[in-house]
Amino acid sequence: MVHEPNNWGRFGPDDQRGTLNLLTPDVVLAALRAAATGEVLSLAMPIRGATSSPAPTTVPHLRGRPLPQHFMSVDGGDYAAGARPIGEGLCVADDALVVTPHGTTTHMDALCHMWSGDQVYNGHPAARVRSYGATRCGIEQVGGVVARGVLFDVPRRLGLDHLPADFRIPPEVLEDIATPRPGDVAVIRTGWPLVWERSKEDYWSGQPGLSADAGRWLAAHDVSVVACDNAAIGGLNARGLADESLADDLHLLLLHRHGIHLIEMLWLEDLGAAGRTEFVFVAAPLRIEGGTGSPITPLAIL
Amino acid sequence: MVHEPNNWGRFGPDDQRGTLNLLTPDVVLAALRAAATGEVLSLAMPIRGATSSPAPTTVPHLRGRPLPQHFMSVDGGDYAAGARPIGEGLCVADDALVVTPHGTTTHMDALCHMWSGDQVYNGHPAARVRSYGATRCGIEQVGGVVARGVLFDVPRRLGLDHLPADFRIPPEVLEDIATPRPGDVAVIRTGWPLVWERSKEDYWSGQPGLSADAGRWLAAHDVSVVACDNAAIGGLNARGLADESLADDLHLLLLHRHGIHLIEMLWLEDLGAAGRTEFVFVAAPLRIEGGTGSPITPLAIL
Amino acid sequence: MVHEPNNWGRFGPDDQRGTLNLLTPDVVLAALRAAATGEVLSLAMPIRGATSSPAPTTVPHLRGRPLPQHFMSVDGGDYAAGARPIGEGLCVADDALVVTPHGTTTHMDALCHMWSGDQVYNGHPAARVRSYGATRCGIEQVGGVVARGVLFDVPRRLGLDHLPADFRIPPEVLEDIATPRPGDVAVIRTGWPLVWERSKEDYWSGQPGLSADAGRWLAAHDVSVVACDNAAIGGLNARGLADESLADDLHLLLLHRHGIHLIEMLWLEDLGAAGRTEFVFVAAPLRIEGGTGSPITPLAIL
Amino acid sequence: MVHEPNNWGRFGPDDQRGTLNLLTPDVVLAALRAAATGEVLSLAMPIRGATSSPAPTTVPHLRGRPLPQHFMSVDGGDYAAGARPIGEGLCVADDALVVTPHGTTTHMDALCHMWSGDQVYNGHPAARVRSYGATRCGIEQVGGVVARGVLFDVPRRLGLDHLPADFRIPPEVLEDIATPRPGDVAVIRTGWPLVWERSKEDYWSGQPGLSADAGRWLAAHDVSVVACDNAAIGGLNARGLADESLADDLHLLLLHRHGIHLIEMLWLEDLGAAGRTEFVFVAAPLRIEGGTGSPITPLAIL
Repeated sequence: MVHEPNNWGRFGPDDQRGTLNLLTPDVVLAALRAAATGEVLSLAMPIRGATSSPAPTTVPHLRGRPLPQHFMSVDGGDYAAGARPIGEGLCVADDALVVTPHGTTTHMDALCHMWSGDQVYNGHPAARVRSYGATRCGIEQVGGVVARGVLFDVPRRLGLDHLPADFRIPPEVLEDIATPRPGDVAVIRTGWPLVWERSKEDYWSGQPGLSADAGRWLAAHDVSVVACDNAAIGGLNARGLADESLADDLHLLLLHRHGIHLIEMLWLEDLGAAGRTEFVFVAAPLRIEGGTGSPITPLAIL
Repeated sequence: MVHEPNNWGRFGPDDQRGTLNLLTPDVVLAALRAAATGEVLSLAMPIRGATSSPAPTTVPHLRGRPLPQHFMSVDGGDYAAGARPIGEGLCVADDALVVTPHGTTTHMDALCHMWSGDQVYNGHPAARVRSYGATRCGIEQVGGVVARGVLFDVPRRLGLDHLPADFRIPPEVLEDIATPRPGDVAVIRTGWPLVWERSKEDYWSGQPGLSADAGRWLAAHDVSVVACDNAAIGGLNARGLADESLADDLHLLLLHRHGIHLIEMLWLEDLGAAGRTEFVFVAAPLRIEGGTGSPITPLAIL
Repeated sequence: MVHEPNNWGRFGPDDQRGTLNLLTPDVVLAALRAAATGEVLSLAMPIRGATSSPAPTTVPHLRGRPLPQHFMSVDGGDYAAGARPIGEGLCVADDALVVTPHGTTTHMDALCHMWSGDQVYNGHPAARVRSYGATRCGIEQVGGVVARGVLFDVPRRLGLDHLPADFRIPPEVLEDIATPRPGDVAVIRTGWPLVWERSKEDYWSGQPGLSADAGRWLAAHDVSVVACDNAAIGGLNARGLADESLADDLHLLLLHRHGIHLIEMLWLEDLGAAGRTEFVFVAAPLRIEGGTGSPITPLAIL
Repeated sequence: MVHEPNNWGRFGPDDQRGTLNLLTPDVVLAALRAAATGEVLSLAMPIRGATSSPAPTTVPHLRGRPLPQHFMSVDGGDYAAGARPIGEGLCVADDALVVTPHGTTTHMDALCHMWSGDQVYNGHPAARVRSYGATRCGIEQVGGVVARGVLFDVPRRLGLDHLPADFRIPPEVLEDIATPRPGDVAVIRTGWPLVWERSKEDYWSGQPGLSADAGRWLAAHDVSVVACDNAAIGGLNARGLADESLADDLHLLLLHRHGIHLIEMLWLEDLGAAGRTEFVFVAAPLRIEGGTGSPITPLAIL
């Protein structure tokens, strides 16, 4: 299965692009026209990584995943305790982050993140995804994403605060809201992060998400990225698992078969409240060579 | 020392802003007009974190700093060795990153990163920068940066491949190249990362950077961010240290006294080759609560 | 509060000992006579650190603590996937461990781990316990522990499988079992790890432990170490906290005021089944300079 | 290649032993008789893991390896800066360690650490050594090591402070010093860590080590462990590599073909100065399930 280059970007059989945008310059220029007010919103959840406090467990995440850890290697407390400043009196705070992005925070999936059989996206051998990192389809291949974003605020459309756990968004609801253009970033709001505030156990009782047909509809419209505030684009059952068949699995459908990048665990409440359907979407993963994904802070320029 | 809000953004005495852009909407809208061709370039160096290979030491970094570590927690090799796919045949690659951004990769400094005395920027107590993270001036306060970027390609101006290690850029050279507007991101190219290719030892023999007067000139022009391809905005001596007096230290001058964010260790060779002085600059640090900085992938939209 | 050297070891006002045993040679020689059969048992719980599987959550730990993470940086899967061996055909597996020992696995506490006021054990300033590590009373001060171990198998004495969560062991029960000699390691079995198998929620519903009077009784008998299969030597309430007053807190009483090292989260089921009250106890923390503790594998030589 | 059980321990075709000693009880009892004075020495190098200071680079290690990182997640500095103690006034220091043991600190190799072909020790498939850890021959299989230690102080025998970098110890020199019994731990001193003090570059210019014939001699004497103060048991050339043929590679010879565990990067200067050839050797790796090795603090009971 070797993919033809799409109409909006450069991913094709020789998809080693390095430091360029996921989309072509003309798509970028068209996307920038979606900016109207200049308001910029972060779509990222906080990374709350203190390690001796219960703080890390206060941010939505998938149960059992290793949470981010944030350490200060030198801080203001050290100077308060008598540490000597550098030179004439310079004080410094420094820190380190340990992060497993999938399932723990806002992140983007690389094309090597999921597959079936022995090939990742576009026929690249899965055997090149090894302990030293993926030499095919790593996250560093995504230079950046500057594109038009289209918000599909599904619960708002349905008059709900958030979708119920077992809701699988059908394509018709998306169709009612907007029609994406090739290269657009489809931003799907489920409202599920709101459930975390109420109860972790409820948050973990399942998750709403796209139906396979909705995924096919988005792929047919040639979007470049599907971004969602849930943890897996598709829904999760009560055991925290995606339970579609291989043909219907949203990751395989979008990431593996169509080369559509995924961004998960967004914070979309501020964007939803802003009431804008179109905007400029910008995201740039860390250039982790061979990475299966990256934590990111996507921006919406309204 | 309590700062008045500047003319381009919202940072003032109550600078807890959360998820908004560093700059105001009108500055953003004006900045977007700097896009001409729609070409998007990544300004980040690779994060090469494999841990049993010599790879990590092949990317410019400050000597002695803990290099990024990148681990695959499951990968294609496991399936090649017989690991059972999930369900009907789903394969997954997952990974983790351990990163200390300062001095090791492209990153943005938080306002809590450096100070003198017992107050960080804007009079916030340094004693609030503790092991659990900074509760004042952490990197999560920067929602995002969408601004006009102005490239000061100093070696090109001077007819050099890169500046020599002991070169301290005077304000006159910057002035010759461009005049930044309030809120602009001043992007300073020294070309120093090119030296790494030639010799690590040469790279570590010192670094060129801004003079204190150039820092004052940029602050006087009310830029929002100073971004550079060297490791410390100012220069480093042969021992790898900034050796200005406290009054002239570039971090104190820009970050501590003026609240101007810093971005360091950029990769500017592609941008320099593009020959454009003005462009849209976008960067969004990870929303690490209480972080002293964040690894980032800044983008230039040409 | 400056402590007099005890009768079994060298810890005194100048307790920087480095690479020597916690106990004096004559105590060691006497301890070795406790070996009878030569059977050696590990008293450590497994460190189950795989990060994409649910495995880490299958070992007893305190809720909310950062679990160990174990990464392979190169493994047999890479060779199965085609990685080239070194030289003529050498294959290697390499790995890394991220571990926060307190509350997550079998570990030993350093004397700097807990205190009240502004001094750690023996009058050393708590302000010397900083981000770079403790320059007083760090775990590297414990070269090793070779001592006589005395097992207080409390549930067996009381005819129980394990103590109930709210049981606080009174000194009389210890007294009934054995009388420790100066320098002995008092090994206290509660059986609480057995509860984990039945139910995590039960395990987290509280923990049995020593009463303050039992702690005083052990201190009066001049033991060198108190080692227990619970997480905090003392008991924990339903919220997972030690709720004694400062005077009665087991950590302050033993570690802070008497300089008695603590070892927690032992696996004592095999030792309990062996039915031996006296044996040789050996443990050697990693020599982490300035560490607040260390994961360890204590051995019992029967 | 399936190994017969040896005469001193239990490793055989079904070598899943869990929590027991590497050696049989009678060997342990005999070993304990080697204790004479009761002096206990640590044989571990310090783990100096502070991350913003140059400290970590001051301990001998192989060039390019990821050094240990040690973080305080809460410390005395936080309280000095105003952090609130717990409850009535309890202060706590807590920390985390990130460690890749091979090449960076005193550690023990698991039997899965090196192999040739597609089988690790004793015919176990190398394909079972995967990202989740080794399900065959992991370090957790070594419950503990309580054995007789025999010191081969080679430089002392030859009237040198330390062996030169290109010295490969012949069996005759070992034979001159002592004859190990089955199950003994052969402790080989080269003195090479002394070179670090003089110059890192000298330390990295190569390393002395055992010759293949000396390895064969030790294997023929059926030792259980070979422990050395160099980094690779065998020597290293100027590029930091073992350059023997597969037949002569010390790791393959001892670990892979004979199931003799290896302990590397010991600190033997104190033991050497003590002048004792026989003693009790005790070491217990962390029970890391599936680990390729473990940092350890071996003890010598004199």
